[in-house]
This record gives sequence, structure tokens and C-alpha cells, in this order.
Amino acid sequence: MHPRLTFALAIIEGLAILAYAFSGFIEARKRRLDAVGTFLVALATAFGGGTVRDVLLERRPFYWVQHEAYVVVIFALSLVAPYVLRMASRVFNERALLVADAIGLGLFSISGTSIALDAQMPAFIAVMMGVVTGVFGGIIRDVVCNEVPLLLRDSRPYATCAFAGCWLYLLLDHLQFDSVYSVIFATGFILIARLVTFKLDVRLPH
Amino acid sequence: MHPRLTFALAIIEGLAILAYAFSGFIEARKRRLDAVGTFLVALATAFGGGTVRDVLLERRPFYWVQHEAYVVVIFALSLVAPYVLRMASRVFNERALLVADAIGLGLFSISGTSIALDAQMPAFIAVMMGVVTGVFGGIIRDVVCNEVPLLLRDSRPYATCAFAGCWLYLLLDHLQFDSVYSVIFATGFILIARLVTFKLDVRLPH
Amino acid sequence: MHPRLTFALAIIEGLAILAYAFSGFIEARKRRLDAVGTFLVALATAFGGGTVRDVLLERRPFYWVQHEAYVVVIFALSLVAPYVLRMASRVFNERALLVADAIGLGLFSISGTSIALDAQMPAFIAVMMGVVTGVFGGIIRDVVCNEVPLLLRDSRPYATCAFAGCWLYLLLDHLQFDSVYSVIFATGFILIARLVTFKLDVRLPH
Repeated sequence: MHPRLTFALAIIEGLAILAYAFSGFIEARKRRLDAVGTFLVALATAFGGGTVRDVLLERRPFYWVQHEAYVVVIFALSLVAPYVLRMASRVFNERALLVADAIGLGLFSISGTSIALDAQMPAFIAVMMGVVTGVFGGIIRDVVCNEVPLLLRDSRPYATCAFAGCWLYLLLDHLQFDSVYSVIFATGFILIARLVTFKLDVRLPH
Repeated sequence: MHPRLTFALAIIEGLAILAYAFSGFIEARKRRLDAVGTFLVALATAFGGGTVRDVLLERRPFYWVQHEAYVVVIFALSLVAPYVLRMASRVFNERALLVADAIGLGLFSISGTSIALDAQMPAFIAVMMGVVTGVFGGIIRDVVCNEVPLLLRDSRPYATCAFAGCWLYLLLDHLQFDSVYSVIFATGFILIARLVTFKLDVRLPH
Repeated sequence: MHPRLTFALAIIEGLAILAYAFSGFIEARKRRLDAVGTFLVALATAFGGGTVRDVLLERRPFYWVQHEAYVVVIFALSLVAPYVLRMASRVFNERALLVADAIGLGLFSISGTSIALDAQMPAFIAVMMGVVTGVFGGIIRDVVCNEVPLLLRDSRPYATCAFAGCWLYLLLDHLQFDSVYSVIFATGFILIARLVTFKLDVRLPH
């Protein structure tokens, strides 16, 4: 891969992880958790999906073991989470958070699917593994905070966008597209699908 | 094994999996989850117990990876869960569901114990693994739906029936009964114990 | 190690496991769980942290598989949990429970860190694994009983004491202290830190 592209992907990945951790901070704040609780919830939100996937696929080492720095950064942010949230609410608006979270959803889902395919999973299972990677962190966050997971009751397409994007990735992979472009294209699809359906307030039946 | 018996067991197993998924549909309906939430809850209910057992025993591939078709069927049913529930309420009565669920409890518990014995677990642990296989799907379902798991507070013998049946299976295995008959006999015991104690409204102390 | 020391450690470990199981009994009583529910909650509280750690590190066999006797004892106690609790409330006061729980927190956290270091985890991750070993049982207990985990919202230093003690252990290990003394010293630190901060009613910011 072109080194500049690798660098860009690493930046985007970092943004996505921080966006997930951030949604953990917000939930922890709502529940008035202390600094330790905030840290554990943010950690579970950011890395829960990938960890469950790796346990299911028997992959080691975990992402957060190889990239210890992320754990340390989330730890440091947790200690000052109230200030982080206050500062962030001035610098970013809610839309910025929505976009960062949607990037995370896309990136984590597609990388999850890709890893599951490498592990010889059948198509439907690989797609499910991708969706789990993208959404499980949020489910753990809400279960620990004693709520019915937002994702399961929201009726806005969230997991659904990831699901569609993972199938798109499978299709591109089947057509033997260059893998870097497949990842970027499918991730972009999920990002745009999430933002457009959110904007248009599309609802799933239930 | 006689091929006709294998076929019969495959049918019974399919029924049991669908009964578990169905109890996920019912819970999801109560909580007004959307189609994605319904699917994930049904999946966790049907395969959660066996997956936790396999993670604990380091067994791969998972049942649902080898039998992808079940995942696809549960997915398809989830999309039309409200209609499935309405239709089912006309065709089956509650007793049919109770019986199907009790078959699942028996089959999953005994198969779990059998697999744990194959993995050289000591007796008490093998029985516990069997009970976990039988009941953990329901626990995950209730935790995700933000309830104290029914099983833990119901005081009707449910896990207790599975527990007794798994010990019976261990006894039969120890007496070197033919393994097919042991499975059928112990599964039947759990099924009947569950139905009889339910009918007589037997309660555990608490 | 001196055989008398080994014996003393085994006794302390047994006490710690029972203290954790006991906190499961208390929670189960509050939620009016039946005997099966009480057993499963006590088991998850006592062995949940170590089991999660072992799944993350791919270690087998689990502690409770090798020490089946603990599972049997907790099972027997669960059957008579109301009597156990009543009797215990006469024999011990709350302070005794607090001390036993703090011993458990110290012992489990330090042993968790030590095991993670043996598995070549980097420093911060090893400390996190230690904290997870010490506190995850309580988190599972509270999640199953449908509460926001006490540990995440209490604001009294609990995980924080474990966190500090694990770093102390790492330091001693780095200074090449004798490993038995490092364990005893760091465990004692956590025990005393927990009791002192509790007594002085120290609170974390949130």
C-alpha cells in the first residue's frame, strides 16, 4: 500500500476508536459513573466488538494488546472525562460525533468481515462477524449501564447499514477488486448510508 | 447409528433451535425491538449456550458456523417476526411452545454434558457445562433485554431438571449404556421432568 | 516455597473465594433468586474474573476445573443460602466480610497481573488484566441481577486500589524481588489501601 495511504488509514482508525470511547464517556456521564467506571465503559465500547470477534475466531493478540497506547490514552482521558466532554461540546457539534461514529461503524464492520473471511468463515457468518465487530461495543456499553441496548430498539438503521456494507464488501471481494479499494469503498458506503438514513429519518419496521 | 434415527434427531434438533429462537422473538416483541434487535436476540438465545460452552472448552468451529443455514433461517424469520408470532399463536398453543422448549433444554443440556466429558472435564464440571449449554441462551436474552433472567428468579424447576438429567446421563454413561440410548433416555427424562413439575406447579425454595 | 507458606496461601485463597461467593449470596437474596439462581450468581462472582482473564489469555484449564471441590462447596452452600446468610450475620459482622473481600481483591488482582506478565503482556495491559481478574466477578454479578455495577458508580476506591497495587507488584518484579514476597507485599498493599480508604471514606471524583 502507498505509505501515505497507510498513514491516512491509521489516523482514521484512531479517530474511530476515540469516537467509540467518547460515546462511552457520554453514557458514563449520564449514569454518573466514577473515573474507573468511565474508563472501563469507554474501553469496552471501543474494543468490545473486536475482542468478541477475536475470541470467536481464536485470534490473538488482541488489537488493544498490540496497540497499548490507545488503552493508555483512553485511561488518561477518563481521568478528566468531565472536562473532555465539556471541551468537546464547545469544539465539536453533535454532527461531528455522528460522523466519527459512522466512520467507526464502517471501518470496524468491514475489517471484521475481512478478518472473518481470512479465517475461512462462510459468507453469511463473515457478514455477521463484521456487524458484531461494529456494534458489539455499544451493546456491552448499554448492558453494563443497565439499559436495553440503543441499537436493538432505536429502529434507525445502524446495524442494518453495516450489514448492507459488509455484503457489498463481499461482492467486491468476489469480483476480485483490489482489497484496499474494496475496504475504502465499502466503508464509505456504510458511512454515507448511516448519515443519509439518519438525515432522512428512515425507520425500520418493528 | 441407524440412518433413520440420525434423521429423526436432526429434525428434533431443528425444532429445539427454532423453539429457542422463538422465545427470543417473544421477548423482543415485548421490548418492542426492531428487526435487527429481534434477530440478534433470537440468535443469542438459540446459540448462546452452546457458544459459551465452546469458548470455555476451546472447541471450534461453532455449531452455527457449521450450520449456517440455521442463521439464515432465523434471519429471515426475524424480518417477519410480528407475522410469525401472530401466525404461530393461531397454529400452536402455549403448551406446544413449552414442549418444544423443554425438548431444547433436554437436548442441549445432554449434548453439552457429553461434549464436556469428551473434553476430559471432571463429573461435576461436565454437568455444569451441560446446564450452561441448556440455559445460558435464555440468560443472555434476558440480560440484553434488561431483565433479571427469568430462570434465576422463577423458582419453577428449569435448570434443576437439566441438572438432574445430566447426572442421570453421567450414570448411564458410567454403566456403559449404548451412547445413543443414554442421550435419548436422559433427554426424555429432562423433557418429562420439566413438563410434570410445570403441570404440578412444583416450586423451589428461596 | 516453604510448605507451611504454601498451606497458608491456600487457606487465604479459599477464604477469598468464599468471600466473593458470599457477596453473590447477598445479592441473590436481595433479588429473591431461587437456589439455582443463587448458585449461578455466586459461581459467576467467585470465578468470573479469572475465567474472563483466562479466555483473554487463552489459558486452560480454568481454576474451577482444576479445583472442582470449590464448585461443589458453593453448590452445597447455595442450597442452604438463607441459613448460611442468617448464621453468618450472627457469627461475622460486616467488617469481617469487608476484610475477606479486600483479601480477595488483592489476591486475585496480583495473581492476575502475574499470570498476564507470564503470558508476555505489556505492562499496562498486565495491570488491566489484574484489575479485571479482581473486579469482573462483581460486575457480572450486578449485570445479571440487573443493576449498574456497584464498582462503576460507587466512587469509593476499589478497582483503584487494585490498580495501584498491581503497579506496585510490577515495580517489585522489575526490581527482581523474590516473587513470593512481591505477591504478599502487593496483596497486603491492596488490602490495607482498601480498608484505609474505606474507613476514611475517601471518594473518587466523578
